[in-house]
Amino acid sequence: MEAMLQQSRAMCPFLKRTAPSTLRTLSTATRPSAGGGTMSNLQVLARRCPVMSKALAVQSARINGNGTKRFTSSAAGVSTVRAFRPPAPADKRMLHTTGGHPASVAAGSYQKNEQVHPHLARPLRPSPAAEAAVHAQTPDATAPTTRFNYNAFYDGELEKKHKDKSYRYFNNINRLAREFPRAHTASAEERVTVWCSNDYLGMGRNRHVLESMHQTLDTYGAGAGGTRNISGHNQHAVQLEDTLAKLHGKEAALVFSSCFVANDATLATLGSKLPDCVILSDSLNHASMIQGIRHSQAKKMVFKHNDLSDLETKLASLPLHVPKIIAFESVYSMCGSIAPIEKICDLAEKYGAITFLDEVHAVGMYGPHGAGVAEHLDYDVYASQDSATPKSTKGTVMDRIDIITGTLGKAYGCVGGYIAASANMVDTIRSLAPGFIFTTSLPPATMAGADTAIQYQAQQPRDRVLQQLHTRAVKSSLKELDIPVIPNPSHIVPLLVGDAEVAKKASDKLLEEHGIYVQAINYPTVPRGEERLRITPTPGHTKELREHLVQAVQAVWNDLGIKRASDWKSLGGFVGVGVEGAEDANQPIWEDAQLGLTSTEPLEGAIARELEAEFVASQVSTPASTAIPQMKTGGTPRSARGYSTLASTVGVVA
Amino acid sequence: MEAMLQQSRAMCPFLKRTAPSTLRTLSTATRPSAGGGTMSNLQVLARRCPVMSKALAVQSARINGNGTKRFTSSAAGVSTVRAFRPPAPADKRMLHTTGGHPASVAAGSYQKNEQVHPHLARPLRPSPAAEAAVHAQTPDATAPTTRFNYNAFYDGELEKKHKDKSYRYFNNINRLAREFPRAHTASAEERVTVWCSNDYLGMGRNRHVLESMHQTLDTYGAGAGGTRNISGHNQHAVQLEDTLAKLHGKEAALVFSSCFVANDATLATLGSKLPDCVILSDSLNHASMIQGIRHSQAKKMVFKHNDLSDLETKLASLPLHVPKIIAFESVYSMCGSIAPIEKICDLAEKYGAITFLDEVHAVGMYGPHGAGVAEHLDYDVYASQDSATPKSTKGTVMDRIDIITGTLGKAYGCVGGYIAASANMVDTIRSLAPGFIFTTSLPPATMAGADTAIQYQAQQPRDRVLQQLHTRAVKSSLKELDIPVIPNPSHIVPLLVGDAEVAKKASDKLLEEHGIYVQAINYPTVPRGEERLRITPTPGHTKELREHLVQAVQAVWNDLGIKRASDWKSLGGFVGVGVEGAEDANQPIWEDAQLGLTSTEPLEGAIARELEAEFVASQVSTPASTAIPQMKTGGTPRSARGYSTLASTVGVVA
Repeated sequence: MEAMLQQSRAMCPFLKRTAPSTLRTLSTATRPSAGGGTMSNLQVLARRCPVMSKALAVQSARINGNGTKRFTSSAAGVSTVRAFRPPAPADKRMLHTTGGHPASVAAGSYQKNEQVHPHLARPLRPSPAAEAAVHAQTPDATAPTTRFNYNAFYDGELEKKHKDKSYRYFNNINRLAREFPRAHTASAEERVTVWCSNDYLGMGRNRHVLESMHQTLDTYGAGAGGTRNISGHNQHAVQLEDTLAKLHGKEAALVFSSCFVANDATLATLGSKLPDCVILSDSLNHASMIQGIRHSQAKKMVFKHNDLSDLETKLASLPLHVPKIIAFESVYSMCGSIAPIEKICDLAEKYGAITFLDEVHAVGMYGPHGAGVAEHLDYDVYASQDSATPKSTKGTVMDRIDIITGTLGKAYGCVGGYIAASANMVDTIRSLAPGFIFTTSLPPATMAGADTAIQYQAQQPRDRVLQQLHTRAVKSSLKELDIPVIPNPSHIVPLLVGDAEVAKKASDKLLEEHGIYVQAINYPTVPRGEERLRITPTPGHTKELREHLVQAVQAVWNDLGIKRASDWKSLGGFVGVGVEGAEDANQPIWEDAQLGLTSTEPLEGAIARELEAEFVASQVSTPASTAIPQMKTGGTPRSARGYSTLASTVGVVA
Repeated sequence: MEAMLQQSRAMCPFLKRTAPSTLRTLSTATRPSAGGGTMSNLQVLARRCPVMSKALAVQSARINGNGTKRFTSSAAGVSTVRAFRPPAPADKRMLHTTGGHPASVAAGSYQKNEQVHPHLARPLRPSPAAEAAVHAQTPDATAPTTRFNYNAFYDGELEKKHKDKSYRYFNNINRLAREFPRAHTASAEERVTVWCSNDYLGMGRNRHVLESMHQTLDTYGAGAGGTRNISGHNQHAVQLEDTLAKLHGKEAALVFSSCFVANDATLATLGSKLPDCVILSDSLNHASMIQGIRHSQAKKMVFKHNDLSDLETKLASLPLHVPKIIAFESVYSMCGSIAPIEKICDLAEKYGAITFLDEVHAVGMYGPHGAGVAEHLDYDVYASQDSATPKSTKGTVMDRIDIITGTLGKAYGCVGGYIAASANMVDTIRSLAPGFIFTTSLPPATMAGADTAIQYQAQQPRDRVLQQLHTRAVKSSLKELDIPVIPNPSHIVPLLVGDAEVAKKASDKLLEEHGIYVQAINYPTVPRGEERLRITPTPGHTKELREHLVQAVQAVWNDLGIKRASDWKSLGGFVGVGVEGAEDANQPIWEDAQLGLTSTEPLEGAIARELEAEFVASQVSTPASTAIPQMKTGGTPRSARGYSTLASTVGVVA
């Protein structure tokens, strides 16, 4: 059979050009056949072929020992298709009697290539172990006797991704520190503007951050050299964790390789150690939390996104004494929605749960010190504090959260993640979580850079104010053009496309025709049908760049005929677009007064008011000078009252 | 009862100074009482106290409604102790009728501190959600009605760690790039010599690595700014993965945040996706692999460490067609043993398994290009290749391994991890593993630095030759003094102590009295009873430092009366120490000829032969010069034949 297949393949244009994985898929996708059995899609194709149909008929006749049995019999079909499937016991004889080198599409054909390279100076040594037969333990004689086809498995998995359009193609984007927010592509000469980075505030090229990193690199070298327990603990870890604890008003903090690891390790450890723990998880939670919960093997209850009533129903269904963790995010990165944090705290207290809040997309971005949405909810309380890293203010929302997790890799521009919580909670994770214990520490320079970034952002809210002003400007311009911006109260600008292929096309067109990089967001990052472009303005996206973006989006929407907001509205609305009242329900969490906006000073005026110039001065491209730019008292947004200058940041980097 | 306890506590010096967790432990550790019931250790203490004994007697009488019942009754004891335990249903009435603020030691007393900070400008908003009663779903009336005591749980977990001596105290060690291998402690003036870092080759302060990182920082900034799919893919990732694939002679490679994540994500993904997969895991495998296997939920079979016969028995017990992964390491970091890689490949082929080899402690350290032990096993074949990053040589051990994982954070001096394998295998993990997909990429400068380090080490074996010579010198000197070095063929120098407390004391003494940092390795990193000091020589540990180490170890062994090798021998030997034939069975994998050792040139002569001077010249402390030090042809070890000079490295950093 295989030999015949091989022979056919040599002649057949279809078999020759078709990937093994496709053949495998065709052969395993079965349909009912006329005879009452099943036949594969490959068989259907094969029957149309003059060569294959004959070959298969001959083979089928031979296997069944019945020359009169025709290929159209479904029984023959079933046995024939087995050449493309992990063989069932009945195939054993056939496989053993088949000579020649099997085609790569055949299950069980995987064999390591033993060809010896001409350079190989000595022959491969014979292995006594491999030669020793283990007759005593011969597996069940009825079991299949071919090896698993690993290559076909990999091909099959990839084929599935291609088929459902979830296969990812990475864009080669090299973000240029001196030309933020521009980047070069695979060609060092070609420039594009990046509109989808999570370096939300451009801290990745902030002068103070880079100076801090350069100095630390020179003094302490490239890597930490060990786990935290074995030579990888140092003053940079101590300092960074101290800064993080203070930022969130908690007793302690712990740094991980990433916030993916922080979330995964913390939830997995807590969920597995707390007796009979139940984890209540928002339906839109990030993959890291979902993974941590799964790894904990704790009971999981998913509540509807930001739905307090559903959460309360689930909490109330559990005995009061059972330990519970409510795991949720402050800003959901793909739609920009913000959790009702305070009310979740109320529920947690009522039902004896602890709260686990992921502020990954909010740290650096919200609150007078950049501690996140939890801090922002008590803006005035925290704004009145002098210190760049305030102590907790009892009774505030941030204080009431039990565990806050965050990243050093988005608004803080570096890499790494952390948790902040009570001292004994943090010490428990420090002592028990394998993902923390058994891994090399972050490099000293990374920790120093992140510490500088946090302290810089804690000193003044200029960058996040400017980011918010730019966000408002972009959202407003796009909405004027009837582009479907998914309404939300945060800094994310998601444009609804609603189709994976079109979203990718739109992204490609923006890049190729307009020099604008906005990645398409498809399944599994968002549900199927909710595919979108996700735009993230930064303080560096000046008026010229914003206008270019808006024109380009308009052109692409026209070119591809993508639905407008009004189209969605006429369809009854979707994910907030074209939904009555959705805009009103999603007022920006940064209020007008906090941004320094007044009725007499409109948006563009506020943007122009020195902020952009100050931002530019903080860039690494600015000619080096010993003086660190000071925030002018008169020029600060009204929200910045009570803040110290950048003097203490100077202390960090000087 | 609680009110009385509180009152007593205010007066009682014992209760006042004792941690809640200790009280909890005392209260839950019970012993049989005279009356046939049980009583807690806390009760035993309480009965000795004139105040508490009376208070408890009164309380016990009231609860039992029997004024004549005395505290010495075990029944009263049982109910009394419940104040310190999660209350059982019978306690309900008592708990509900107790007024006042409960002491923090009492179970169920955990309440968030609602005290409002004086700075809080506005009162806490009342929450309608919290006030809405959910009468319809009141839990089972017989269930306990107190909240879970999370603090007591954390305290209890930490107490366990203290009790079994596995609680970890981190040493603040700041490794100085310009004084390698020296570091300063928490005090910037105090110097110690680091003898346990995994920066095995000092690449963390290699000039070329640092230059590459500085340049990349300035050009591309501090962070990647996104996941690989969303703006975090760039030329540095492309270049690094290309270098890694070539280093291991594989079609492709994939970079992760760390090799912990690489191992975890890859094994978890493969094990969960391959149908009915079985993972065969060496009993000494690293925590990252153990976690990955557990997360995969695949069937796991643990085979005895490096035991081919046990592995084969287990393989043979499985049907041939079932997918199987043999997961193991090349160098086991805590004992220094090396796997029989080639024979494991033989078994894998015989039984239809794929091999997953963790080369974390071997990359940079073994093989003519530093590709690891798998490359080293065909030293001459690969040494004859000109390129710094050779293509796979068919049929070699390295070629036969299916998946190689490694780190950028040990011998390569940076941070991060990777896998290298066939293109479709790597693409499958790239497409399916959440730990890869949903996390921020490594910073461009980290990837550039790691790439430079790999290429630098691939150019010439000088550093690892010198490291091996230093390892031999240290092992030899320690053995001469009867210090129990666990025999092994690798670069690890583990000294057997056999007791957690003594190991920590020895480590502390070395640090405090001798200025030498060697971390004690205790459970769970090694089994209980096998506690050890783990020494890792580097090319920077010159003769003077080695002599200092040996003297210091000798002094500490004397001071603490730690068992000598001869003591272990007289006890019949343990983990190879004092075991007949163990030394012969553990000949160094770097052979004499590969190190340039001959009968006419002994160890010290070989070390002196220019190698240390060349190593020093590669340090960042060397005054900057435009010329990159070239390897002198006459001065290279004989093993370095056929290698190009550092010229191509210059290309990377210039």
